Amino acid sequence: MIISLEGSTLAFDQKENKLVIIDQTLLPNDVKLLYLSSSEEIFEAIKELKVRGAPAIGVAAAIGLAVCAKDIKTCDKQIYFTDLERIKEYFESSRPTARNLFWALDRMMGVAGEVKDLTVGEINEKLAAEAKKILDEDVAVCRKIGENGESLFRDSGSVMTYCNAGALAAVRYGTALAPLYIAAEKGRKIKVYACETRPLLQGARLTAYELARAGFDTSVICDNMAASLMAAGKVDAVITGADRIAKNYDTANKIGTLSLAALAKHFGLPFYVAAPCSTFDPDCERGEDIIIEMRDGAEIAGKLEYAGANKPDFSYNPAFDVTPAGLITAIITENGIINPNR
Amino acid sequence: MIISLEGSTLAFDQKENKLVIIDQTLLPNDVKLLYLSSSEEIFEAIKELKVRGAPAIGVAAAIGLAVCAKDIKTCDKQIYFTDLERIKEYFESSRPTARNLFWALDRMMGVAGEVKDLTVGEINEKLAAEAKKILDEDVAVCRKIGENGESLFRDSGSVMTYCNAGALAAVRYGTALAPLYIAAEKGRKIKVYACETRPLLQGARLTAYELARAGFDTSVICDNMAASLMAAGKVDAVITGADRIAKNYDTANKIGTLSLAALAKHFGLPFYVAAPCSTFDPDCERGEDIIIEMRDGAEIAGKLEYAGANKPDFSYNPAFDVTPAGLITAIITENGIINPNR
Repeated sequence: MIISLEGSTLAFDQKENKLVIIDQTLLPNDVKLLYLSSSEEIFEAIKELKVRGAPAIGVAAAIGLAVCAKDIKTCDKQIYFTDLERIKEYFESSRPTARNLFWALDRMMGVAGEVKDLTVGEINEKLAAEAKKILDEDVAVCRKIGENGESLFRDSGSVMTYCNAGALAAVRYGTALAPLYIAAEKGRKIKVYACETRPLLQGARLTAYELARAGFDTSVICDNMAASLMAAGKVDAVITGADRIAKNYDTANKIGTLSLAALAKHFGLPFYVAAPCSTFDPDCERGEDIIIEMRDGAEIAGKLEYAGANKPDFSYNPAFDVTPAGLITAIITENGIINPNR
Repeated sequence: MIISLEGSTLAFDQKENKLVIIDQTLLPNDVKLLYLSSSEEIFEAIKELKVRGAPAIGVAAAIGLAVCAKDIKTCDKQIYFTDLERIKEYFESSRPTARNLFWALDRMMGVAGEVKDLTVGEINEKLAAEAKKILDEDVAVCRKIGENGESLFRDSGSVMTYCNAGALAAVRYGTALAPLYIAAEKGRKIKVYACETRPLLQGARLTAYELARAGFDTSVICDNMAASLMAAGKVDAVITGADRIAKNYDTANKIGTLSLAALAKHFGLPFYVAAPCSTFDPDCERGEDIIIEMRDGAEIAGKLEYAGANKPDFSYNPAFDVTPAGLITAIITENGIINPNR
């Protein structure tokens, strides 16, 4: 649908045993495919946001585990499973907030456990098949999120979105952008305001890129301009993805989401979250329990240097914030739409 | 107090007939003084934010007019006044939202009008004296804002501020930061969160620079992190400057201020505005009447280029937004504290 890889934004090259991704840190200026096979390469790709977006991270980790499993050179099952567990935990340590990462790796380990009496070669085949299944399911699930959510965008209008929860955050369609893609398929004209999403600009670099390519009327704004647009009546709804959803529907998503949700409430606009059911964490009671990844302050400081002795501090750089359920109008999933406040 | 120019951030070199400013577009990496004399240089310095901040723009324009008046080579009063009026209007066109720009230039023209029967040389001396007076008054007014406002910061605590309304936005002390400087003089420890203020990063570049230099515990955050900090209970109050205040107390300030004001309300925090009385526009009934300067979208896009035919739009780049009076807890002026909702 979007870029390459026959319409997907990531792929599993089973012949070459490689995870194939678009290096999203180079977008939108350069479109470069990466072919990854070592666990270090895959860990780094997730950690450094070359592949990012909760669903995409899950799919990439599943494929990554299948790829790396095949490289464990042993027939000794105990060594094999110890290595497999080690790789799984290594991948889990890359982005602690993304629920789908843990979900996908748990699912892969579950399959490995179920077929543990087979040979290593046979287990590897099962893992590869499961990874492929997770990838295919992601496409189907995102499509279904789009079909369920498009009813909320019956009229042509203006939608604000945040970070990137589009095709580049999944395999195709994405989560937050899926309803907009389906609405566009049905001939509706949706204007999209993409918040740039500091410090890493996923909104400006990725969302604006994929939406403009797909023919949407797309405007990029600085995150601090959202209130001004809402006050001017230029926004009909806000929709974002999610990285982890607690049992009480408190939702972790990219830092800044809470700001948009509170502003949407202030200006009387609906605030929608779109996410696959794999984003729901049954072990997490409420937002306070979600571990928030802190990233390097250098991402904020960029090239700023301070003449003189005293320098300001840049260490507050959480990758996510938590939007309380009370600010969320609806959560759109592949299984239907949830009203978290009913 | 801060950098050079004997403690001020801009100066009037009457001997050399030059306006002296720090090129704020180069801060914090480089500290460079500019000596300006032509109307084009002064216009460009204001337009391109080499000197910025409502009070500083007013002072710079007043000095600029005095400097340029001296360069009008004529004894014919009609030619002189036509030229003077032309320069005034030229300066006014540089930043249409800043109230102080118009206020300072009107005051200068008023003085010229009062002494119109003197010789051109004598009028020029009066203009230079008036510009110097405006500069000195700014220091006194900002100091008084600080003294009036510090009572709102009786306890040590954490204050969030936006853009730069500090010494660099005035001559010394600034407006929003003046109460914090005075509180610090009285020995209180105030932690300051400086929102970076996209797209031009005045918060990260200027506020963080001057506060860290002055010994404050200063953290820079991305604008989209404000809600997260407020939700975590890490912010006790928000204070900003103002570029123009309508008769009903609706306040235009740097784009993103409205967002902070609405978030402060959502999280139950006081939202303060600090500004000299020259920021109040007696001809402006309400916020809707304030003309908002739109700037070039390239300021947002930066180095982003988009592979492919369809490119997103970056044209929504207002320099300011309007915070309705209802969201403002208090306006701190040199004459006292106003509660806009009483």
